[in-house]
Amino acid sequence: MPTIVVDVMPKAELLDPQGKATTGALERLGHGKFENVRIGKRFELTVQGEVTEDVLAEVRKMADEILSNSVIEDVVAISVDGTAVEAR
Amino acid sequence: MPTIVVDVMPKAELLDPQGKATTGALERLGHGKFENVRIGKRFELTVQGEVTEDVLAEVRKMADEILSNSVIEDVVAISVDGTAVEAR
Repeated sequence: MPTIVVDVMPKAELLDPQGKATTGALERLGHGKFENVRIGKRFELTVQGEVTEDVLAEVRKMADEILSNSVIEDVVAISVDGTAVEAR
Repeated sequence: MPTIVVDVMPKAELLDPQGKATTGALERLGHGKFENVRIGKRFELTVQGEVTEDVLAEVRKMADEILSNSVIEDVVAISVDGTAVEAR
């Protein structure tokens, strides 16, 4: 069954406290060259049957309306079996 | 500055309650063809300077030891500026 991956990140203009804390921790642990850590979500879902254009449209709608909160998050990528079908 | 993405997912053999709940919600909302939702984390970090082999080695170590909990999670992919450098 095809695997669809939806990547969701906090909007760039919003503070990401989890990421900020991780940036600070990395610095304290000697990894100071890494900056601006931001932490988002990665959804993996399998789909029954083939991934047609209709299925992709459904995934896009689901990603925007159910899997992400558009007030604070952006859907940054959607891929099917490792091939990007959408990157914003 | 180069952007590094580290993808972390709950181990396949472990239950993912968050993903299970999402699978159930999708079904109730009429998206029953999507199954086995699993939810992991996506870390985006920027790095000062070039991404050399040494930097990549540091990222791999960081991903395994700091960004993920190897008891319950796997690092499934590391990419630099959109190019996968590691997939497991």
